[in-house]
Amino acid sequence: MELIILLGLVAVIFTNASFLPQAIKTIKTKHTKDLSLGMYLMLATGLFLWLLYGILIKDFPLILSNGISLTFTLTILFLIIRYK
Amino acid sequence: MELIILLGLVAVIFTNASFLPQAIKTIKTKHTKDLSLGMYLMLATGLFLWLLYGILIKDFPLILSNGISLTFTLTILFLIIRYK
Repeated sequence: MELIILLGLVAVIFTNASFLPQAIKTIKTKHTKDLSLGMYLMLATGLFLWLLYGILIKDFPLILSNGISLTFTLTILFLIIRYK
Repeated sequence: MELIILLGLVAVIFTNASFLPQAIKTIKTKHTKDLSLGMYLMLATGLFLWLLYGILIKDFPLILSNGISLTFTLTILFLIIRYK
């Protein structure tokens, strides 16, 4: 595999998986006071649009990575609203 | 402009700008207890790799958008470590 493609793949894995530790932390603590509602509203909207874009151009990696990120982000958003 | 390109652009703007409200909130409150250090370490690493990828393939929109996101993310990461 070309090194540059591998770099891109590792970048995708890191940015997408990064929301998982926050989701786990928030599920455990139920504390959301310091989290920005605005951030997660904008992020969920952006990731939804990315997902839609991936579906429209039929790009499977885009659909997969944004689908995963959106799931984590919606989980955190739900918890922020639930434990407000 | 093609509608699909516009959709992608709006998606980029939303996901990239989403970290700004969190950065502003954290700068104001100085409270970082509920934020996941793991998330921001992973996100900063991923965005740095994206930026590097953008530089290597000489893609200006990729450099710009990831440069902006990385700036916000590093600000939040710095505050989490500072006010731990």
